[in-house]
Amino acid sequence: MTAAEIVDKMLSNDAFSQWLGIELIKIEPGYCELKMISRAEMLNGFGILHGGIAYSLADSALAFAANSNGRHALSIETSISHHIKVKENEDLYAFAEPIVTKDKFSHYQVKIKNTDFELVASFKGVVYNASTIWA
Amino acid sequence: MTAAEIVDKMLSNDAFSQWLGIELIKIEPGYCELKMISRAEMLNGFGILHGGIAYSLADSALAFAANSNGRHALSIETSISHHIKVKENEDLYAFAEPIVTKDKFSHYQVKIKNTDFELVASFKGVVYNASTIWA
Amino acid sequence: MTAAEIVDKMLSNDAFSQWLGIELIKIEPGYCELKMISRAEMLNGFGILHGGIAYSLADSALAFAANSNGRHALSIETSISHHIKVKENEDLYAFAEPIVTKDKFSHYQVKIKNTDFELVASFKGVVYNASTIWA
Amino acid sequence: MTAAEIVDKMLSNDAFSQWLGIELIKIEPGYCELKMISRAEMLNGFGILHGGIAYSLADSALAFAANSNGRHALSIETSISHHIKVKENEDLYAFAEPIVTKDKFSHYQVKIKNTDFELVASFKGVVYNASTIWA
Repeated sequence: MTAAEIVDKMLSNDAFSQWLGIELIKIEPGYCELKMISRAEMLNGFGILHGGIAYSLADSALAFAANSNGRHALSIETSISHHIKVKENEDLYAFAEPIVTKDKFSHYQVKIKNTDFELVASFKGVVYNASTIWA
Repeated sequence: MTAAEIVDKMLSNDAFSQWLGIELIKIEPGYCELKMISRAEMLNGFGILHGGIAYSLADSALAFAANSNGRHALSIETSISHHIKVKENEDLYAFAEPIVTKDKFSHYQVKIKNTDFELVASFKGVVYNASTIWA
Repeated sequence: MTAAEIVDKMLSNDAFSQWLGIELIKIEPGYCELKMISRAEMLNGFGILHGGIAYSLADSALAFAANSNGRHALSIETSISHHIKVKENEDLYAFAEPIVTKDKFSHYQVKIKNTDFELVASFKGVVYNASTIWA
Repeated sequence: MTAAEIVDKMLSNDAFSQWLGIELIKIEPGYCELKMISRAEMLNGFGILHGGIAYSLADSALAFAANSNGRHALSIETSISHHIKVKENEDLYAFAEPIVTKDKFSHYQVKIKNTDFELVASFKGVVYNASTIWA
């Protein structure tokens, strides 16, 4: 399967990414760009985007980028810092790319940006590249 | 405001925690227990709970525990590892407690467990304790 | 090889742990306690213990605890927060224990404490349990 | 004080960075390059560089980069992954640069590379920018 086929399959079966309204902008082996729009039901008690939404967007971007290489990839450890508050109805973009790619483990960074290209959140994830392939 | 009053106010205004179905089990200054149930719309492309849901539950638990001390607390850095797959319609519990509490910064751990008391995910968060108080 | 034999072998060949003056207090499969004393040559430009020393102590504790189960364990990702300043000639203790143990991956926490049993630093590490064993 | 003056003062008083043989290659406000050479006494029980050495180099780079802006900076949380084994007598380079810079908090990444420009370790650190300045 190609990178695009793998991610189409992942995204079309992914109920929560669909709830988030995630749209695939670009996919290449190991690289992924996503877009979504913040909605009222995604806000926390301070009226700003719940940290879990930015994490979810980044985590989906990680999963798509890491699996698009053709082997099943499992998330081992992730971290995120939230830098800028997001309000309702803002466009959010995720950019996932490898920091380092090895046979067993790969490390990715995902940057979440707003329409002003400001860094909303920075995410880092380690995945285990299983021996099974997408077929 | 008491710990319970602070968290009632936070949770009642928190649209996304409500979408998650988060229920407050226990709150004491610096300590918080939450419960939620996994739903079909929270699953990813593999038919298991999206990593962002467990993160969101843990992040809400962190916010409630850290703010329940009476000062406004801001998340600086968080990390999570997912240990066990969660299916639809499982009960999930979050237990947030401090690792260390300082004047400016506090570090919390949040454990997510299932009904068998297995560790579903382990979360760590650092918060900044602002000088403003809940009133 | 037993846990004690594995760690004796690791420590006796470990030039940097010896430079640190690391002493093995207790070893059981998956659990490790170490001790060392801060020296003048370990301080940074502020006259307090360099963050790298506490990390090194914790990293050795992780390696000993994780390998003591009998399989070769490789560090995948580690994080540390420094909570209390350490001066020259203080006793430091490391306590390494599993957060969760799985076949392929295990997560450990290491707590560094001083003689007053205050938490000097908190460390978290993920290891990959290789299929090769200590023999 | 200029960035160079701050880091000269920090490094000249930093006993452990001197033990490591750390040499300042380049300093600009918020940016720092360091160099050191791995020695036999820095190796672990597997005959490769102890993880604590790469962490220490990265942690010094973080401290220099973050303080070079003129305000005192305190490390809040750091993480590191080790990607490539380092042997004795290898040149190591650290490159520290901001991911995001805010008034109170800044996030830096530090890359450790060898002479082949391979990524030996990737490090991330959050610092708190105190209100006191270098003078």
